[in-house]
Amino acid sequence: MISNEGMLVVVSGPAGVGKGTLCRALFAAWPGLEYSVSVTTRNPRPGETEGKEYYFRTREEFMEMIKNNEFLEWAEFCGNYYGTPRFHVESVLARKKTILLEIDIQGAKQVKAKYPDGVFIFIVPPSLATLSQRLRSRGTEPEDVIERRLATALKELENIYDYDYVVENDEVDVAVEKLKSIIIAEKCRVKRKSFSFKGEIK
Amino acid sequence: MISNEGMLVVVSGPAGVGKGTLCRALFAAWPGLEYSVSVTTRNPRPGETEGKEYYFRTREEFMEMIKNNEFLEWAEFCGNYYGTPRFHVESVLARKKTILLEIDIQGAKQVKAKYPDGVFIFIVPPSLATLSQRLRSRGTEPEDVIERRLATALKELENIYDYDYVVENDEVDVAVEKLKSIIIAEKCRVKRKSFSFKGEIK
Repeated sequence: MISNEGMLVVVSGPAGVGKGTLCRALFAAWPGLEYSVSVTTRNPRPGETEGKEYYFRTREEFMEMIKNNEFLEWAEFCGNYYGTPRFHVESVLARKKTILLEIDIQGAKQVKAKYPDGVFIFIVPPSLATLSQRLRSRGTEPEDVIERRLATALKELENIYDYDYVVENDEVDVAVEKLKSIIIAEKCRVKRKSFSFKGEIK
Repeated sequence: MISNEGMLVVVSGPAGVGKGTLCRALFAAWPGLEYSVSVTTRNPRPGETEGKEYYFRTREEFMEMIKNNEFLEWAEFCGNYYGTPRFHVESVLARKKTILLEIDIQGAKQVKAKYPDGVFIFIVPPSLATLSQRLRSRGTEPEDVIERRLATALKELENIYDYDYVVENDEVDVAVEKLKSIIIAEKCRVKRKSFSFKGEIK
């Protein structure tokens, strides 16, 4: 009588907001959710498997994929390229499953242009003070880099109005529960279902 | 940094679909949710308290309230009048809380005209065969009445496209979990929040 369609969920937000942690916890809590495997030109790290963490490609192969419009979004980061391959996402949606993409704000913009019906979730820190603490506690970057990243984050937060949902990453458990609820709710959306009521009456 | 607005949630669906059972279970699981207390002209039953189950009014008082546009929706059922008083709903929303209305499809239409930003949830039976069984198992109505109600239900299901969400009432626990998720998710909607990011950077 009612059937589900496939669904694309994008989790994005400023760098350092903890979206990676949230998505890992969400996958652990929800095995039915499918993960979007990115293509990258960086070298595999010990323990990483082709097609699991990433699809590993040469820079030439990556450029060829860009040219052939094979990415939903891509970006260069620290000299390496990362991209979301269209074929993987489309095959999951064709199976009417839910696929989750964890990407940065620029990537989310590119995906939204191609999949306006996706579910776009913006993760925010409880406050910029918290974000500042998190970036500093990593201890990996000098002060001027941290200040530049905070200024960027403040600017990035203005993108919130392009998103459907906003989730504060205060406590991980609470935030993961909200992400789960958003996905369950979106699966109940009338616009995401097909109906056939005819010929059912007995 | 982020604050919530009040929210109006309407749970509706064909008669006999079990929306009353679902809403009672939802309230039991979620004490923070506020219940819309209806006004009625019927007599109080033993144990019913003014302002808790219903506001009890005379027919004259009810007519006066209709004239003064004091209802979000009202209807006549078996010779008695029932209505959702605007003052109660508005006072809950002003306190930025979530209020739940369990009403029939005609009532939901009236509320939607006044609160298009409300969350509208349609409860459906897993199939019309199930609805037919449920109506018959009550054993309170003759066969021709049941058949008329089933025909009405089939017609009412076409209203689904006026709603945001559809929840199948197959297992009560699963359906209540979906209702909870919808409310949690809607509270995360960007359009239901106000933001202030300025002056936060440290």
